[in-house]
Amino acid sequence: MAIELYWGSGSPFAWRVMLTLEVKGLEYESKLLEFSKGDHKTAAYLKLNPRGKVPSLKDGDFVLYESLAIMSYIDRKYPDPPLFGKTPAETGLIWRWLAECESYVVSAGDKLVRPIFFGQGLERVEEIQQGVQTLRDEFKRLDERLARSQWLVGDKLSAADIGIFPITQLVLRAASKEAAQPFNLGFLPLEQRFPNIARWVQRIEALPNYQRTYPPHWR
Amino acid sequence: MAIELYWGSGSPFAWRVMLTLEVKGLEYESKLLEFSKGDHKTAAYLKLNPRGKVPSLKDGDFVLYESLAIMSYIDRKYPDPPLFGKTPAETGLIWRWLAECESYVVSAGDKLVRPIFFGQGLERVEEIQQGVQTLRDEFKRLDERLARSQWLVGDKLSAADIGIFPITQLVLRAASKEAAQPFNLGFLPLEQRFPNIARWVQRIEALPNYQRTYPPHWR
Repeated sequence: MAIELYWGSGSPFAWRVMLTLEVKGLEYESKLLEFSKGDHKTAAYLKLNPRGKVPSLKDGDFVLYESLAIMSYIDRKYPDPPLFGKTPAETGLIWRWLAECESYVVSAGDKLVRPIFFGQGLERVEEIQQGVQTLRDEFKRLDERLARSQWLVGDKLSAADIGIFPITQLVLRAASKEAAQPFNLGFLPLEQRFPNIARWVQRIEALPNYQRTYPPHWR
Repeated sequence: MAIELYWGSGSPFAWRVMLTLEVKGLEYESKLLEFSKGDHKTAAYLKLNPRGKVPSLKDGDFVLYESLAIMSYIDRKYPDPPLFGKTPAETGLIWRWLAECESYVVSAGDKLVRPIFFGQGLERVEEIQQGVQTLRDEFKRLDERLARSQWLVGDKLSAADIGIFPITQLVLRAASKEAAQPFNLGFLPLEQRFPNIARWVQRIEALPNYQRTYPPHWR
């Protein structure tokens, strides 16, 4: 039975999983949910994922949600190429980058993304500025790491790169919006502000089948 | 060279790692940091962990922080007993529980723990009540799962149990405080409110060397 991926355009969490499937060279059936139609809140979908979020993966009879969990499942079931490290140290460092992304980047991004994309909470200027400051600090850490290495951990693409890349893309997309201008984010142009992140983005964009994963409504 | 664990009493994140080390039967040197003395913000400690948090682990020359990353490192380097699943499905489900804990339980707990333990932000009643509601929902999910199985994933103790247990203990400790009474948390007595969680707690408390991991200042 084919793998089915339930996803939504622009969800960085779904994007992670789609990149993982493409890097592994796996065939999968794309199930694109439209948030605006409430596809992720139907009774049928809530049976797959009671939290009503994306992504969810169905592999035969097995159903899983939470993006990092799906990535770890795929890597264990389809180990080539290995994405969670070839040594204990690499495994630890990959999960460290992912844990830091979830704890710091994602929550700071939340403070920014909703106001800028949906105009919600634009008046909470202090909270937005806090988010911006955290994101700047975290981009700086990424840029410093990527000044010394092509990939975040070891000498190959890993789950750390795949997991963090879509989040950075969402932040950069927010930064490009007119609603972001008053906040003076300082992320763009990326080549000038964070040149090593910019080169890393190019390396990921050059992966085979990358274009198939790009959020359709961002084009 | 011995493993060194840098931890603080009452940190559920450090507790996870200590339980992991004990379950693996590993010797380690305990480096207890005193938050009140700022031990986690000294220049020497910030070299190990630039975020100034606990836990951090040193294994020979290798240094790692972020609790789940440390758990995955230990499991890969010292695989017996395996804590991240014996099959891809188990691995995926373990990381799903852990990701849900980080996304929902930890952030809701944050809304509660600071006001109740330190009296900070007690006036933000609505935010605290939101946290309480989320925690109740999450405890209900845990209790339902544990009604059907002794452990969260598969038929053995796993990283899911070890990772989530200390967070539940912190929430229950908050619930027992006098400052929590006005919020009517509804977690205690645990045996009546969440009987399956209560039995799971007893199973974890019965693990060999559990007592060595109990936060000293909670006694």
